[in-house]
Amino acid sequence: MSNKTAMLREAAEAPEAVARQLARNRDLCREIGARLRARPPRFVATCARGSSDNAATFAKYLIEIRLGAVVASLGPSIRSIYRSRPRLADALFLAVSQSGQSPDLLSLAEAAREDGALTVAIVNDPASPLAERCEMVLPLHAGPERSVAATKSWIASLASILQLVAAWSADAALGDVVRRLPEDLAHAAATDWGAGEALLSQAEDLYVIGRGPGFAAAQEAALKLKEIAGIHAESYSAAELMHGPLALAGPTFPALVFSQSDPALAGVVELLRRLAALGVPLAVAGPAAQAVAGLPGLLTLPLAEDLHPFAAPVAAVQSFYPLVERVARARGRDPEKPPHLSKVTETL
Amino acid sequence: MSNKTAMLREAAEAPEAVARQLARNRDLCREIGARLRARPPRFVATCARGSSDNAATFAKYLIEIRLGAVVASLGPSIRSIYRSRPRLADALFLAVSQSGQSPDLLSLAEAAREDGALTVAIVNDPASPLAERCEMVLPLHAGPERSVAATKSWIASLASILQLVAAWSADAALGDVVRRLPEDLAHAAATDWGAGEALLSQAEDLYVIGRGPGFAAAQEAALKLKEIAGIHAESYSAAELMHGPLALAGPTFPALVFSQSDPALAGVVELLRRLAALGVPLAVAGPAAQAVAGLPGLLTLPLAEDLHPFAAPVAAVQSFYPLVERVARARGRDPEKPPHLSKVTETL
Repeated sequence: MSNKTAMLREAAEAPEAVARQLARNRDLCREIGARLRARPPRFVATCARGSSDNAATFAKYLIEIRLGAVVASLGPSIRSIYRSRPRLADALFLAVSQSGQSPDLLSLAEAAREDGALTVAIVNDPASPLAERCEMVLPLHAGPERSVAATKSWIASLASILQLVAAWSADAALGDVVRRLPEDLAHAAATDWGAGEALLSQAEDLYVIGRGPGFAAAQEAALKLKEIAGIHAESYSAAELMHGPLALAGPTFPALVFSQSDPALAGVVELLRRLAALGVPLAVAGPAAQAVAGLPGLLTLPLAEDLHPFAAPVAAVQSFYPLVERVARARGRDPEKPPHLSKVTETL
Repeated sequence: MSNKTAMLREAAEAPEAVARQLARNRDLCREIGARLRARPPRFVATCARGSSDNAATFAKYLIEIRLGAVVASLGPSIRSIYRSRPRLADALFLAVSQSGQSPDLLSLAEAAREDGALTVAIVNDPASPLAERCEMVLPLHAGPERSVAATKSWIASLASILQLVAAWSADAALGDVVRRLPEDLAHAAATDWGAGEALLSQAEDLYVIGRGPGFAAAQEAALKLKEIAGIHAESYSAAELMHGPLALAGPTFPALVFSQSDPALAGVVELLRRLAALGVPLAVAGPAAQAVAGLPGLLTLPLAEDLHPFAAPVAAVQSFYPLVERVARARGRDPEKPPHLSKVTETL
């Protein structure tokens, strides 16, 4: 019997789960994509909580960059607490949830469907109440997830979003990116980020930085560092960091940075130089690390160089999960038992 | 000559600035409100950075709760970096900025107007390039602001949003709330939150919690605590805290909590009981403090009891600014010279 934690075992299952999911959902995604092209939604509203809401951030950037539709993040409480009925006619309503159980999500999904939105649920449990309430369901096919910290289901939800965006845009090149994703993830799962353990496990506070699609990876990494490793990690977009939060930067406040080969790269590189000049220890994944090679205090977290900018954040998180699990153990924490948390959080 | 900092002097000017602004913008708001009722926008897109983006959060909750329009927060980089043209025809595009200078905001405002959105700028400098690019301009009339940390202009931007929402909804009761606001702010400016100094100045890490409109106050307080006082303060909605971040809660990780008399109150009170049981020191403003009076570790930050839920967060921040200025000085920092920052941040 393996003495690996469930979190580590489940994270390692992600590449296979994604391969299975992409194959099973292909026709479904094509159908939804054709509907969205035939009748473009006026806008998109995502609805999610916790790590699923980090996945929704990924959807926001991909859809806004590639499809030009504006994406709003709807707080479920707007309906469940404030009893408001947001106007969602002719919108795409995209709910993301591992369990599909949270009552506040269900209430908003019902209202969206009644109002005439195309409702799509990206959910691991296709028999869940959320799946029942949405017109279209993209099951994650990730299998049961026992660890409190979601890993393979998070990776699978990003894969599902990427597949949906590729189908919606009917972009053959993006279709190739989707087809390559399981292989990219398998490579990332085999890539050791252990070099980051010393830096991260000494940190009590940390900024996790990304921009564009990479911001979703930054949000997810910050949440896991809090949840599992007990580090006060906070995510920021590279631009927002300059508007105030930079005041905390210094030698005892490291930064973990996710980057990808896209037009945001130059700004991330500029920020890295600025942070290095302030003595901030840096752990950097993606092409920004090559761009600033030799910078004092730089630690490179290896990421394949030929990744599409929409695949890079997913691969980076695949490599990050085993790292955060190690960091948790190095800090004397049980990654399976984050304090005060349970697997399904029911919020109203 | 006063030995008060510019930040403190400018924060104290807010009630008068708001009175001036509300009088001068009344007819303009009515005109915009009538246009929005005559042709309801398909959705609303806000565009802002830094503390102005915290003001945009306030707009999101007020509009979604009171007017049922979905509000998306558009990252300026979508246009300036990614060269995407988000579809904004028939939307309300609402830009919030103190200086009206940031190039990324200008580029998106131009695209929004060309696309047929109703573009409205809430901006302190009515001669700024952002004001020039928007069809309608709501000047803050806050006067020059020299302190790096925006205070009166932030309060004024919330007042402007409240006045716009009252005019759009044509709700007489909300009109009364707007008219009372300068008086509420004057009372809040005269209310001493100094009791919070000891707790906050000892903290290195902090959650700032709010829900609904109060979440905007939480975001603003967290940003100022970082910027001025060098505390790693992070804002969370009361609901999101349960999905992971709760793992950090404990006796050395206090929480500053903003509440208002609205349907979200019960959930905030429940969270306070849970945090108190984990030994979290609590500083609480608004009706939630009364609801948990006597809870161990509770510190009450006084707020008038009869405040409308849309006015309470604005009044709370008015009382908070002198507190964070004191906390900064108690920690040996100059509130006028936050490290690494300048007044106008130009991001692309």
